[in-house]
Amino acid sequence: MKKIKITAPATVANLVCGFDILGMALNDPKDEMQLTLLDEPVINIKHTDDYGLSEIPEQNVAGVALHALIEAYPKPIGFDVRIHKTIMPGSGLGSSAASSAGAVVAANKLLDGYFTNEQLVQFAMNGEKLASGVKHADNISPCIYGGVTLIRSIHPLDIIPLHSPPIFVTVVHPQIEVKTSDSRQIIRKEVALKDAIKQWGNIAGLVTGFLKEDYDLIGRSLEDVIIEPVRSILIPGFADIKKQCKEAGAMGGGISGSGPSVFMFNKDEKTANEIKNIMENVYTKLGVDFRCYVTTVNKQGVQIMTNDR
Amino acid sequence: MKKIKITAPATVANLVCGFDILGMALNDPKDEMQLTLLDEPVINIKHTDDYGLSEIPEQNVAGVALHALIEAYPKPIGFDVRIHKTIMPGSGLGSSAASSAGAVVAANKLLDGYFTNEQLVQFAMNGEKLASGVKHADNISPCIYGGVTLIRSIHPLDIIPLHSPPIFVTVVHPQIEVKTSDSRQIIRKEVALKDAIKQWGNIAGLVTGFLKEDYDLIGRSLEDVIIEPVRSILIPGFADIKKQCKEAGAMGGGISGSGPSVFMFNKDEKTANEIKNIMENVYTKLGVDFRCYVTTVNKQGVQIMTNDR
Repeated sequence: MKKIKITAPATVANLVCGFDILGMALNDPKDEMQLTLLDEPVINIKHTDDYGLSEIPEQNVAGVALHALIEAYPKPIGFDVRIHKTIMPGSGLGSSAASSAGAVVAANKLLDGYFTNEQLVQFAMNGEKLASGVKHADNISPCIYGGVTLIRSIHPLDIIPLHSPPIFVTVVHPQIEVKTSDSRQIIRKEVALKDAIKQWGNIAGLVTGFLKEDYDLIGRSLEDVIIEPVRSILIPGFADIKKQCKEAGAMGGGISGSGPSVFMFNKDEKTANEIKNIMENVYTKLGVDFRCYVTTVNKQGVQIMTNDR
Repeated sequence: MKKIKITAPATVANLVCGFDILGMALNDPKDEMQLTLLDEPVINIKHTDDYGLSEIPEQNVAGVALHALIEAYPKPIGFDVRIHKTIMPGSGLGSSAASSAGAVVAANKLLDGYFTNEQLVQFAMNGEKLASGVKHADNISPCIYGGVTLIRSIHPLDIIPLHSPPIFVTVVHPQIEVKTSDSRQIIRKEVALKDAIKQWGNIAGLVTGFLKEDYDLIGRSLEDVIIEPVRSILIPGFADIKKQCKEAGAMGGGISGSGPSVFMFNKDEKTANEIKNIMENVYTKLGVDFRCYVTTVNKQGVQIMTNDR
C-alpha cells in the first residue's frame, strides 16, 4: 500500500496589516502526518499527540479536507491518517491549517499530483471552515506554497507567492485560550475610511518591502490600526512585548493570526534570541505559561519525510 | 538673473484601488512653467493659458507652494512665475499638483537643489490644500519623483517610488465639471470591513504586479469596491467605457483621481489607440465634449526644458 510521511509547518496569518490576505510559513513548530492510500472510500484518523482532538472524520479538520479531495477524485479512494501535532490548537499558529493542508498535500503526493495547488487550497479550506466557521486561506496558502503568500481574492481564488528576504522570526505562545471564532466576533464590521487608507498604505509598503528586500520598509509597514487595537486586549502582556522588542531591535511584529501567539521579525539570529529572552521575561513575570520559538521562513511548505510505494 | 523653464506632468491618482496612496506620472498632457529667481521676497504670477486661474499668489496653488518654500529658505528670495497650463483644472489629471510641484521643483533647481524631494512634496501639498481642502500627496509625489509612487503614510511622510513595466495609458477627459472637494464629500466615512479586505487584497496585488511586471495581475487588481461605485455616478458613460474597453483588450482602469477623467492601461500602443476610439465613440454618442490622450508612464516627473544662469 502506498504510504507517505510529511511535515506540515506552522504559519503566521495576517502579518499585522494584511488581515485575511497575507500569510507566512515557518520552519518551526511543525506537525507530522502519515497517510496510507486505500482503495475504498473510508477515512480513518488516529492522533498520536495528546491534544484531545476528535478522530471522527466529520469533526476533524484533516478529515473534512480529505473528504473534499476524495469527492473530487474520479475513482474510489480512502486514507488511513496518523497525525502527530506539535502546533498547539488555538495557538494562532495555523494548527488547523497544518492538519488540513498537510493531509491534502500528502494525499495528492500519493495520487501522483493529480490536483493543482489551488485545488488543494480549496479542499483544505473546508478544514478552516470547520475550525473557525470561515473559509479563509491565509494559513492554508503559505502552508501549501511555502514562504509568504498573498491571497488577493477568495472568490475567485487568487494566490500570489511573494519573494521575501531572510527573516528570523521569534514567536511566543502564551498558554491562554483564544478561540478564532471569538477573536473574529470582537472585530467591528465597519471601519473608518481614514483607518482603511492607513492600512492599505501599510499593506502596499509591506509587500513592497518583501519584494525589494527592504528591511526598514517592512518594519515601518508592520502597523495595524484596525484589528490589533481590538484583538490585543485579549492577549496579556501584548503592549509590553511589542514596546520592549522594538526597542531591542526587532523590525516589528504583532499578533499571529487571531492570537494569542505574538511574533517579531528580526534581521539576524542574535537579535531574534534577545527578543526571545524579552518575551520569556514578560510571561514569566506575569505568571503565564508559554512556548517560545526562534525560527525562519519556511520556503517549501509541506515537506515529504519518507515516501514508501 | 537665474531663470529656468520646465514641464510638469499630468498624474493619475489612486490607480483605482489605491485611494490616497498611489499615483502615476504621464508623459501627456503637461504644463509649461518658467521661473526667475529674485532676491526679494515677492511672488509674481502670470498665466499665459486661458483657464482664468487667479494670479494672486495666496489664491494660486503655485503661489502658496512657493510661499512655503520661500519661508523655509534661509535668505530672502522670490520668484517671477509664468505658467502655461494644458492640464485642464478640474480634469482629475493632477492639474493643481502640476502647478504646485512644477513651481517648487523649478525653484529648487534655481537654488541648486537646496531642498530634498520630500521637502518639495511638503511645500507642494500646500497647493493641494488650497485646491481641494486636503493635503494629499498622491498627485504631487509622482509629479516630483516620476513613475509610480506609493505614499505609505502622510504623517510622517513616507514615499516609496515603485518600479513599473512599460504601460500605454489611454485617458479621456469628458468636459464636465467635478470638483475634487465635491467628489470627496460623497464618499462614505465608514466602509464595510469585508470591502476593505477586498480593497487591500487588490492593492497588494497591484503593487506586486508593478514590481514583478505581471500585466495580468495588474489587470486583475484594478478593481475598486469602495470609491468607484460612488464616484462613477458623477461620470456619464463610465460603465459603458469600462465594459467596452476591457472587452477590447485593455488591462483595466477606472477614474483618474476624483474624475471626471477615465484612464485605461494597455500592454501595447495598438490596443491603446483602439481604446481611444472606444472612448471617443462613447462621448460622441452622449454629446459630451472630450479630450483624449494616448500616452506612457513618465519616469522623470518634472523635467527641465532650458536652464539659463
